[in-house]
Amino acid sequence: MSLLQQTIEQITATNQASYDKAEYYIDSLAKPPKSLGKLERIAAKIAAMNDGVFPTIQKKAVVVCAGDHGVYEEGVTTNPQDVTVFQTLGFPKGTTGVCAIAKSVGATVVPVDVGVVEDLPTDAGVLLKKVKYGTDNMAKGPAMSREEAIRSIEVGIEVANEQIQQGVTLLATGEMGIANTTPSAAILAVLEGCDPLEVTGFGAGVGAGGIAYKAEVIRNAIALNQPNKEDVIDVLAKVGGLEIGAMAGVTLAAAAHGVPLVVDGYISTVAAVIADELNPYVKDYVLASHASEEPGAKIAAARLGIEPMLHMNMRLGEGSGAVLAFPIIEAALSMATNMVTLEEAAAIIQTNK
Amino acid sequence: MSLLQQTIEQITATNQASYDKAEYYIDSLAKPPKSLGKLERIAAKIAAMNDGVFPTIQKKAVVVCAGDHGVYEEGVTTNPQDVTVFQTLGFPKGTTGVCAIAKSVGATVVPVDVGVVEDLPTDAGVLLKKVKYGTDNMAKGPAMSREEAIRSIEVGIEVANEQIQQGVTLLATGEMGIANTTPSAAILAVLEGCDPLEVTGFGAGVGAGGIAYKAEVIRNAIALNQPNKEDVIDVLAKVGGLEIGAMAGVTLAAAAHGVPLVVDGYISTVAAVIADELNPYVKDYVLASHASEEPGAKIAAARLGIEPMLHMNMRLGEGSGAVLAFPIIEAALSMATNMVTLEEAAAIIQTNK
Repeated sequence: MSLLQQTIEQITATNQASYDKAEYYIDSLAKPPKSLGKLERIAAKIAAMNDGVFPTIQKKAVVVCAGDHGVYEEGVTTNPQDVTVFQTLGFPKGTTGVCAIAKSVGATVVPVDVGVVEDLPTDAGVLLKKVKYGTDNMAKGPAMSREEAIRSIEVGIEVANEQIQQGVTLLATGEMGIANTTPSAAILAVLEGCDPLEVTGFGAGVGAGGIAYKAEVIRNAIALNQPNKEDVIDVLAKVGGLEIGAMAGVTLAAAAHGVPLVVDGYISTVAAVIADELNPYVKDYVLASHASEEPGAKIAAARLGIEPMLHMNMRLGEGSGAVLAFPIIEAALSMATNMVTLEEAAAIIQTNK
Repeated sequence: MSLLQQTIEQITATNQASYDKAEYYIDSLAKPPKSLGKLERIAAKIAAMNDGVFPTIQKKAVVVCAGDHGVYEEGVTTNPQDVTVFQTLGFPKGTTGVCAIAKSVGATVVPVDVGVVEDLPTDAGVLLKKVKYGTDNMAKGPAMSREEAIRSIEVGIEVANEQIQQGVTLLATGEMGIANTTPSAAILAVLEGCDPLEVTGFGAGVGAGGIAYKAEVIRNAIALNQPNKEDVIDVLAKVGGLEIGAMAGVTLAAAAHGVPLVVDGYISTVAAVIADELNPYVKDYVLASHASEEPGAKIAAARLGIEPMLHMNMRLGEGSGAVLAFPIIEAALSMATNMVTLEEAAAIIQTNK
């Protein structure tokens, strides 16, 4: 059995009884019921992944998947393509946005080359797992073959498995790939069966043709490649991206091991949607972070039943919003383990009076 | 000169040139300009308090001010008044919601009795600075005298000064006081010159009469006591609360020492509005945290020009939302100090290629 198939089959639904037990316990804590809002739901969701136990987070990591996009040549973005390489080489040096935030919250940044256009130096500190030198231009044909799409997902699984084996118990996905809101919108438009314009936004800087032109490129690519919406790997192959596949793989591996997976913005959430299409229990393991300003992000989040907690007007990518949510998630677990129940509080105060 | 007057006079506007310099530097970092959104504005605002330097946060503390309210007897809340004492005694034991979150983010909780109805044990770990055994019922006369209102503010100044002297460089205000959304709404209605209904919400549990009745109680108290909206201490005395005054004092002291002050929810934000009425430069030192669901909270935040970053559906109070914002603020400063500029990034990558 392939690594992908094996991982998909390993994912089980979280235990509703465990969720209910955790929720019941949280309701008994010394506070008005539900008054800690999303913190309570995060703690219960993670407990449900752990047979009802509230874990203490050990190591935390964000896997940042890098890839380039053939559709870049259609002029869908203002950013030069070599930014992908430039930033990817910055991750191991700790100089980028996600690195600064990760340092502050005590998380590790794990950069992976899944498909940037250039060969990277072997000693740069980037995991070299290139599947292809960037996708092909989906405006002219499929972005990649089915085999390449599967391989991109498996790269993510391999990297996440390695992190989990090293003791990481909280994972996030991030990305670097100039033009990658274009394939993200294309994937979501196919899965939703909606017009691309509904899920296409400004990205990190839309090209001269504006959002309408970007949506038109996507519309034409879908018409040309005819991805099968019932087969998400076909969708990923025809109008997707290599780093998007890898992020889907990280998400699958996290779910397979019962590790909470925090999505970042639009691209990362679409990757989680792909994983969830492969096994609908994936969403039980996915947590939101910040609100993306891309119009499709809400639609993608709704498919997973998640709602962001941070409203930061951030649009950097790299997993920067996801790692910013790490301390919130840890605070949720601290609530569950360090607060006392109303009953216990009453007893303590009585004894000490 | 009184401690209050001295503190008010010590507060100066933050330096616009320092803000601009910080913003210019942040714009030069290796990311699309403004792409880290609110993190950038937080870092620049704190730099402006520090002559343009991005500080590293040392100790962090939340001052939780406790007080009771005579207006409780009007039936504005469903919660029993003895919850104030009960929870106040829980803070030093680390058993409450804010304690669990503070532990997770490495902050200290400093509970202060400014005006709970009972005498607390001297060895309970609560700072005993009681001004009065709860306010009087504002539905029947002024909540307190002008002298008591001033004293309540000075209690907050004393506690905050002590914390700052001990090395705290990031402060937050929190509260415990059954019925205290009622005086908060009363204060804001007077300052805004609006009908109380516009700023009155559910609180931690509105009484049987609902929000309309709660607003009616406030409307009548304002009509009876005739607070002078040009004199915020008169407003605090006539329709305010002791812990609200103390939180205003903490806010003033933070501003006087150039220490960023994070507000929590509605009550804490109204306290910051009081401080800002006493010196309009106070708002330069105030940072938002989470979005409160009280309808008046947005209005109070708008007076200070602040916007929440966390949307957690939290309504516990105690400063729980404010401490949850501490790691976000630290991440903002880490961004400013740990990211490299685009120019530096290019040089590093060139050297290593």
